[in-house]
Parts: sequence; structure tokens; C-alpha cells
Amino acid sequence: MTDVVIAGVGQTPVGEHWEIPLRDLAIQAMQSALKDSTGLRPEALYAGNMLAPSLSHQAHLGVLLADYAGMAGIEAETVEAAGASGGAALRQGFLAIASGLVDVALVVGVEKFTDLIGPDVEAALATASDSDYEAIQGLTPTAQAALLTRRYQHEFKLPADGLAGFALNDHANGAGNPNAMFRKAVRLETYQQAEMVSDPLNMFDIAPNADGAAALLLTRPDLLPRKFANPLVRIAASATASDTLALHDRADPLWFSAAQLSVERALHKSGIAREQINLFEYHDAFPVYAALSLEAAGFATRGTGWKLSQDGSIGLKGRIPCGTLGGLKARGNPGGATGVYQAVEAALQLRDQAGANQIPQAKVALIQSLGGPASTAVTHIL
Amino acid sequence: MTDVVIAGVGQTPVGEHWEIPLRDLAIQAMQSALKDSTGLRPEALYAGNMLAPSLSHQAHLGVLLADYAGMAGIEAETVEAAGASGGAALRQGFLAIASGLVDVALVVGVEKFTDLIGPDVEAALATASDSDYEAIQGLTPTAQAALLTRRYQHEFKLPADGLAGFALNDHANGAGNPNAMFRKAVRLETYQQAEMVSDPLNMFDIAPNADGAAALLLTRPDLLPRKFANPLVRIAASATASDTLALHDRADPLWFSAAQLSVERALHKSGIAREQINLFEYHDAFPVYAALSLEAAGFATRGTGWKLSQDGSIGLKGRIPCGTLGGLKARGNPGGATGVYQAVEAALQLRDQAGANQIPQAKVALIQSLGGPASTAVTHIL
Repeated sequence: MTDVVIAGVGQTPVGEHWEIPLRDLAIQAMQSALKDSTGLRPEALYAGNMLAPSLSHQAHLGVLLADYAGMAGIEAETVEAAGASGGAALRQGFLAIASGLVDVALVVGVEKFTDLIGPDVEAALATASDSDYEAIQGLTPTAQAALLTRRYQHEFKLPADGLAGFALNDHANGAGNPNAMFRKAVRLETYQQAEMVSDPLNMFDIAPNADGAAALLLTRPDLLPRKFANPLVRIAASATASDTLALHDRADPLWFSAAQLSVERALHKSGIAREQINLFEYHDAFPVYAALSLEAAGFATRGTGWKLSQDGSIGLKGRIPCGTLGGLKARGNPGGATGVYQAVEAALQLRDQAGANQIPQAKVALIQSLGGPASTAVTHIL
Repeated sequence: MTDVVIAGVGQTPVGEHWEIPLRDLAIQAMQSALKDSTGLRPEALYAGNMLAPSLSHQAHLGVLLADYAGMAGIEAETVEAAGASGGAALRQGFLAIASGLVDVALVVGVEKFTDLIGPDVEAALATASDSDYEAIQGLTPTAQAALLTRRYQHEFKLPADGLAGFALNDHANGAGNPNAMFRKAVRLETYQQAEMVSDPLNMFDIAPNADGAAALLLTRPDLLPRKFANPLVRIAASATASDTLALHDRADPLWFSAAQLSVERALHKSGIAREQINLFEYHDAFPVYAALSLEAAGFATRGTGWKLSQDGSIGLKGRIPCGTLGGLKARGNPGGATGVYQAVEAALQLRDQAGANQIPQAKVALIQSLGGPASTAVTHIL
């Protein structure tokens, strides 16, 4: 197997882009990544998207994007794994380059929620759960996360606001990211006064559905000119694992086994030790996901992940900085694009280009894209 | 790059399976492929599906299938490229094995149309075209194919019933395939008396939406025991190309450039000459697709593809047998599963297990899965 590197990154600001069509969002990010890689020409496009068929009545998105970007002729496909679609598209690009059959691949993650509002969006999001046994009962991802949160709080005897630190950390970090949806730090008092959405989750506990696109240019280092403009970011490992789709099918709903499996596989493949990891971009769609992801990745023991949000461990100067550019809560949660945003943000950290939020001497980043309650976990080490 | 082989195949009969849920259809095919491969254990599942998010409100299908097949834990993703989703899933499996990072992969294509009928199905199918510029105008894939057919008939001065031979060939071959939706040969008089659906396309010119699933077990030959039960089918080449998504964006709508590009790439990669190909499983959703695919693949010159359906060339004993087990018209067209059905059928031919429809001494098969009017073309040589 050959080395695979990220030679270019691009992203749009995350937010409510009512005036920008789905295709234009994606193409803005793709063009940024192409420009950043100083003109490499992709042979393949892998598009990560979760909901365009439901929200925009658009399937066949890979070809649409290749076409509108002026690249008709190249390979183009869409990869879907719910919220992990972006991570899965990155993995497909990685496999294509690693196989030696594709020299240069463009990976784009895109999602557009605006244009539809209200129940239609919740129904679309619920297609990521088991439609015959969960969605049909009215269970939405947010309602499910509320149930999981309550169980976590009960089982591990959390104090009031025991999970508040995850949102506060994200908002503190979002303040330093010009592409974040929310760029303002939030105090605990503000969190405490927020409206309840799905008890016990208040407004700050739910990463906002958002529009956005992010893109990566992948290639092999031996194909690049010697004096390549950008610092290259090597993908040291890629691993994917699954769990039951439905939360109710798990013997232990408070353990993200796919998240654990994929991290273990990635560490094993890369030969990197957990202690060498300088930052962790987790999939914190809800605070309980963040806590369980920290536990599954081995940064905290079972039932103690929440404590890392209280003692500063996940802060920019902490033991294991997380959500370093705002995470899903403050950067925003553009569904199937989030996995690619994570890779772009981690690459910026490793390239020493993360601005105000730079982690000093960051060498190794762990990124993890989840679909559903870690039904899919796609993990990469950069 | 290592060799990639098909070590097991499975399929369900194609038809209207009102009583079988989407997941069960897929799992039947997956289990057949696993049984056929005598117990290899897959590390990854790549699911090709086009319309489950629209028709069954089910995204995140890869994990659902892995879970219900008792394989939770493995890698699982969905690959989508409209009608070429099955071909694209096969390509993803091929890339994964070729990269050396996955040892055994299961590829499944599945589609379930029943449960919904009428305009909802047409609207779902139209998501594969450009939703902002085609579908919104009321253009459905069938209406588009009717326009393309009329242009083809006009431009190349076809006689009446010039394209009839494609349906007759499919139905003749379907008679010998126990898994085909239509297993009865049809005479020209019957074709001529069929009801018009979308002028000039009559009922026999439109491959029927159908339910079905097909599966393949891919691995490397060096991982198999020496005395492996099945004859192995090697994937000699895999290539994908795209064209504009919208037909109206093409300078020449009567040339399937993605189909041509992907065939040329596959021939080049495999070092196989066109003359060595013993059968061609084309994506004949409509007869004009078959004619243009034959031209794009180089089996006929421009404007003459239709003649091969008139002179016996595409018959089981012809120069280039096509749709050897019924093609999309008579085997049926289960959307995103068709590309995997093609691979299963070609593998059966190469394994000398195609029963009444066996092509004697078949050594090399070309299969091609199209999305939209060849907006995506995924080509494999087995």
C-alpha cells in the first residue's frame, strides 16, 4: 500500500445559506480545495451526502457536481452512511488512492437543510434510523439522543449541568473560526437559561442543522512536484466499523462499540499510540455522543467521559483538545459534510494554519465521523 | 495491485415482491452469496441502492443490512449513482480489495419499488435527473428516453420496429432464466400490438421497475484454500466515467461518451482486445440505451447499433451475445441492483452455470451499469 496524503483543503462558511443552491455550495468548496492544491486534476470525485434525495429531490449527486464543476468525464459517485457520509466519502477516496488505481481524488461533503423547514426535516433525518422499527414510531434522532442522555445521567450519577461543558467548549472554539456558524463564547449562565427542546436536551445541547460543504484533494506524495506549496498531511490510518442500526437492539446502549472498534483498528494499522494524539475531532451532534466517543476512544474510562468537559481536558490547552474549531455545535452540523469538515479542520491544525485556535506543535489528529448513535463510525488518523 | 476475484454469487428472483421487505430481499441475496463462497467472512459491505431514501424512507442502508445479516461490527456503506449504483458498489468493493486494506468484501445491490405505486415512483426516479432543470419541468426518465428514441429514429432513418429486436432478444433469453421477471419469449406481432406508453415507446420498450437483490463476494485469490469449491471469476478491469447529468447539456445527445470512455479505460487497463469479449451485459433500460451502448462500446459504428438487434448479432449464438439472461427488460430492472445482477449473470456464464442460456466457452464478459442516460457509466471486464 502506498502513502495517501491530503494535498488541498477547502470549505464554505457553515450557516443558513438560503440563497446558495446545493450544487453551488459543494462547488465552492471543491474549487477552494483545487486552488489550495495548486492545480492538481482529479480523476475521481467522491461525494458524501446524507439527505439530498429527501431534502432537495436530488439523487445522482456525484455526477451532478462533477458536471457543474466542469469535470464531466471523471469517475463520480455518492457515498452515504447517514451523519458519517463525509467520513465514508473520505474513506472511499483513501481506498481509491491506496489501491493505486486512482492517482488524484477529490472528496466533497455537502448538505443543504434550508429550503425545507420543520417536520419535513425531522422526517428526513429520521431516515437515518431504522424506518420500520424506530422512525415509524415517531422517534427522531434528537428524541433518541434525549433518551440516551437521560440514561447516561442516571447510570453515572451526573450532577446538574454535568454535560454543559461540551457546548461551552465548542462555542469558545467557534469564536476563533471564521467559518463557524456560531462565533461567540457562551457562559454557563446562558446555557442554564436556554429553552428546553427535548428534555433533558436544551437548545445548546443540539448541534444545529446547517448548510455547508468541505472538500479534500487526495493523492500520492510521489506524484507531487518536489517543491509543493502546501505542507502535506498524511492519512496514517482509515477504519470503519458498524453497530446495530437501532439503539434498542444493543445490549448496552451506553457503549459506542463501533466507535471503539474503529479507533482500535486505526491505532493498530497506524502503529501510533493513543498518547501521541494531539487533538480529537469527535462527532458531538449531542453532548452524550461526545462523552461516549471520548470513552470509546480510550481517553476516559467508562462513565467518566463527561468529566473531561468539566476539568479543561478538552480545551485548546487541555490534555486532549476536542472540537478545536467549534465542533458540530458551534461550527455547525451540515449532516453528510461534517466528516469532511473534520478532516479539513484537522489538516489546518497539522499545517499550523488554524489561526487563533492553533494547537501548538500538533502532529497527530484523530477524527471520527458518526452515523446515527454510532451505528456507523468512520475513523481516520492524520 | 493484487488480483480481485468473485468467489461467490447470490440473487433473488426479480419481480413484484409485495410481501418481502427491502432488508429481507437484500439479506436473501447476501446469504446466497456467502453460502456460494463456502463460508468466507466479509470485513466490509458495500450496498448499491438508488431509491430507498425516497421509496422506503430508509437511508443508512449499509449498516441496516450488515446489522440484520448478523454482521454488525464490519465496515458498511451505501454507494449511489442512480441506475449505476450496483455497478458503483461493485467498483467500491473492487477498490477496497485492490488496495490490500480489505481482504473480503460483500457487495449487494438491492431495490424495492413495490409499497409505492404511480406518481410517487416516477417522482423518485426523476431524482436521478437534474432536479432543478429537468425533473422540475416534469421530465421523467421514460419521457426523456422517448425523446432520445425519436431523435435516434429520425437521425439514423430507422424503419418501423427498427428497435424491436432488443425487447424480443431479452424476452427470448428471459425464458431460460429461472430468476427472470418475464420468462416467456415474445413474437414481433405481440410487440407491435402492445400499448403505447410514451410515444414512441410501447410497453415492451420500457424495462419494468422491479424488486430484487443480488450479491457478490469479492476477495484475493491468495486468501482462498487451494481446493476452493467454485471456479473463480477474476475482475480484469474496473472503470467509471461520467457525462453531463442533464441530456440537454450535451453537444451530441446521441453519443454515450461516458459509456465509451469507461469501456476504453477498461480495455486499456485489462490489456484485453474487444474481439476477445464473449458477451456483453448492457444496461438496456430502453432499447435506445442498448443501441447507443453497443455503439459506444465499439461493437457497432455510430447510428448502426440498432442493426445488431435485427441480424441476430446480440442473440445467444450471435457475434456479441447481450442480455444473455434476459437483460433489464425481461430479467427486470431493480434500479440500483441491476449492476450487481449483471455481474452475477456474467459470472454464471463464465462459470459455465448459465443453464439453458449458456454461451459455449465464455471466457471474457463485459458488463456496464448506467445511471441516467449514461450520465454515469461503470464498466467491468470479468
